[in-house]
Amino acid sequence: MMVFVSRHEHFNAAHKLYNPNWSKEKNDDVFGPCANANWHGHNFEIIVTVKGIPDPDTGFVVDLKRLSKLIRTEITDKVDHKNLNLDVDFMQGKMASTENLIIEFWKILVDKVPLISKSATLHSIKLYETPRNYVEYFG
Amino acid sequence: MMVFVSRHEHFNAAHKLYNPNWSKEKNDDVFGPCANANWHGHNFEIIVTVKGIPDPDTGFVVDLKRLSKLIRTEITDKVDHKNLNLDVDFMQGKMASTENLIIEFWKILVDKVPLISKSATLHSIKLYETPRNYVEYFG
Amino acid sequence: MMVFVSRHEHFNAAHKLYNPNWSKEKNDDVFGPCANANWHGHNFEIIVTVKGIPDPDTGFVVDLKRLSKLIRTEITDKVDHKNLNLDVDFMQGKMASTENLIIEFWKILVDKVPLISKSATLHSIKLYETPRNYVEYFG
Amino acid sequence: MMVFVSRHEHFNAAHKLYNPNWSKEKNDDVFGPCANANWHGHNFEIIVTVKGIPDPDTGFVVDLKRLSKLIRTEITDKVDHKNLNLDVDFMQGKMASTENLIIEFWKILVDKVPLISKSATLHSIKLYETPRNYVEYFG
Amino acid sequence: MMVFVSRHEHFNAAHKLYNPNWSKEKNDDVFGPCANANWHGHNFEIIVTVKGIPDPDTGFVVDLKRLSKLIRTEITDKVDHKNLNLDVDFMQGKMASTENLIIEFWKILVDKVPLISKSATLHSIKLYETPRNYVEYFG
Amino acid sequence: MMVFVSRHEHFNAAHKLYNPNWSKEKNDDVFGPCANANWHGHNFEIIVTVKGIPDPDTGFVVDLKRLSKLIRTEITDKVDHKNLNLDVDFMQGKMASTENLIIEFWKILVDKVPLISKSATLHSIKLYETPRNYVEYFG
Repeated sequence: MMVFVSRHEHFNAAHKLYNPNWSKEKNDDVFGPCANANWHGHNFEIIVTVKGIPDPDTGFVVDLKRLSKLIRTEITDKVDHKNLNLDVDFMQGKMASTENLIIEFWKILVDKVPLISKSATLHSIKLYETPRNYVEYFG
Repeated sequence: MMVFVSRHEHFNAAHKLYNPNWSKEKNDDVFGPCANANWHGHNFEIIVTVKGIPDPDTGFVVDLKRLSKLIRTEITDKVDHKNLNLDVDFMQGKMASTENLIIEFWKILVDKVPLISKSATLHSIKLYETPRNYVEYFG
Repeated sequence: MMVFVSRHEHFNAAHKLYNPNWSKEKNDDVFGPCANANWHGHNFEIIVTVKGIPDPDTGFVVDLKRLSKLIRTEITDKVDHKNLNLDVDFMQGKMASTENLIIEFWKILVDKVPLISKSATLHSIKLYETPRNYVEYFG
Repeated sequence: MMVFVSRHEHFNAAHKLYNPNWSKEKNDDVFGPCANANWHGHNFEIIVTVKGIPDPDTGFVVDLKRLSKLIRTEITDKVDHKNLNLDVDFMQGKMASTENLIIEFWKILVDKVPLISKSATLHSIKLYETPRNYVEYFG
Repeated sequence: MMVFVSRHEHFNAAHKLYNPNWSKEKNDDVFGPCANANWHGHNFEIIVTVKGIPDPDTGFVVDLKRLSKLIRTEITDKVDHKNLNLDVDFMQGKMASTENLIIEFWKILVDKVPLISKSATLHSIKLYETPRNYVEYFG
Repeated sequence: MMVFVSRHEHFNAAHKLYNPNWSKEKNDDVFGPCANANWHGHNFEIIVTVKGIPDPDTGFVVDLKRLSKLIRTEITDKVDHKNLNLDVDFMQGKMASTENLIIEFWKILVDKVPLISKSATLHSIKLYETPRNYVEYFG
């Protein structure tokens, strides 16, 4: 009776891909236009999936209003209209790739999902950088 | 050689979230606007995924025309342009949440998928209540 | 230098199509399943388009945060998670078709758009009842 | 026999909304998070529409491969993975709003569309900043 | 009180772009891979827009079930799972471009729309060949 | 720390479903309009998912520019604007179903993904024939 429940949110942010241990030439060679010193940006789409047994009183695995609020408070409020390299505490010292971003998102949410539901645990996060490129993480 | 084959259908329905064992105040507190006594509704999107080995004669795991017809006959004809709380036999006595709805859809389809294909079995159902909220069930 | 600026919002609502001056048989004949006495519903999508000259100080025809807030305050807060036939003042005594709904939305917004921008006027409203059916109105 | 032909392209860019003649406080007040000093960004989607009479020999108003190449060469190559405020010549001294951006795109394309087709002229440009916010310009 | 009402349908078809008065070399040069002798194909999406005054008894400009049936009977049944060059009467002797296709669709529908509604007339047809390429026609 | 990374590409192709060991009548009976001798076609959408540990120097499981190029070179260049039955070497002697197509795509990519990344392996391929019908394969 395990049901998987997903909520879709979004944020807009700037970033660049740039390894400070490398020369500008090597960065340009590896990252191409993504290394542009003056940044570029995306409309990121994030889908958070939790799993659990529906509560007989509500029919809910999780109240989606509470899941939406959790994602906004803990994730999108911290990255929306921000520079992922400069403005976001949990990305300091890391390459601002979607792979690293989604791993940090998981660390933030994994202990907080059980606080908003009796039965739900975090199952996966999906993160679209563009409609054509996305990553998924299961912990 | 196991291939997963999916078919997307849709239906439009009304529902409300309301626990008859609770006061109106508690229902409003828990379900918010979803408890509106006069109902609200959605364009639901349903994706049914079956899995199996392609038949060498047809190249098919399942004939998608038959899978589409099965979903329409067994599911969407029973819920389309209906009130999920009042009009749908298999939802009587249950909270009309997408979690409970998808579990009932699974019970209806799981024994019928093998009747339309030599090799296919039901793998999962995905149910969108809105483009931002969806559930998935694997039995 | 006239630029058209659009904002997309959404709401979920129940309705039925039923002419009280007709017999149940005629209603069923004309409206089919849309006449279901127990209602059905949709995820409506609304796109409001205003037109005007960009302000040199802001680059804006209209501040989209203000346009979004206007649509939510004046339109979607009044119809979201509501029954369009029973709960919505401005639809009383009217058939709850998307055609009639969009005309009422226009009447509400046409005088309020100029209050949130020096140059903008309402150009059009587009209303999706389903991804396959929509109406548009230009006043 | 006038047919309107549209081509959809995209680019990813960073920008901020900031009027240098105003204090930081006024910028924050007017533009909110869009004024973030460290930039933010979007996946922009651009749709260019031309109109004309189909050529009897090709059935084309315009060769869409040539229209696509024109948009990429003249527009998206100049803004993709760029900072609209810092890196783009034609936006210097202008607020980096979608309204101003689309007017500049029009100026670039209006004389070049007739060079790739015997009958086509530029009809409109549509520019999505997010799936929920877009502008359109007809010259 | 003129409201524009649109219905979205789809069909899947094969075609090629090939001018029989030209050499194979010129066809390849002008049409590139679209001239492939063995055909290619698309999932076409068609949106038909009619305009009119809502009927006070129904709230409808047009009954969308009837508009849908008209499009399917008169258009998509004739082109779905067909070869546009070989199988479609009204495309004989014409280049199978979307421009020519949409003009023929208009000729078919323009006199038939008034037969399904007291007030509606055909306003426009929009035809997507791919999600990135589309044409629109207003007669 | 296993992250799943996906890239979306597309191609347009013609095909038919026809078993040469069967009579025309049996083919028509089993495949319906998909057996049309003159072919039909689709806009296919392909999503390739690889999995691996992000490289600490780049933050990447795989360079998406290289994954995109691999899909285009090895898959879409061979099927785009082609007839899947007649023009595609690896489909000779097979029914041109999406099930068979995705199995062949897997065979082509499975050994080549590790050549473009230190840690990535092929996880799955998803293939949309239409927005309503798709298959997925995990090897």
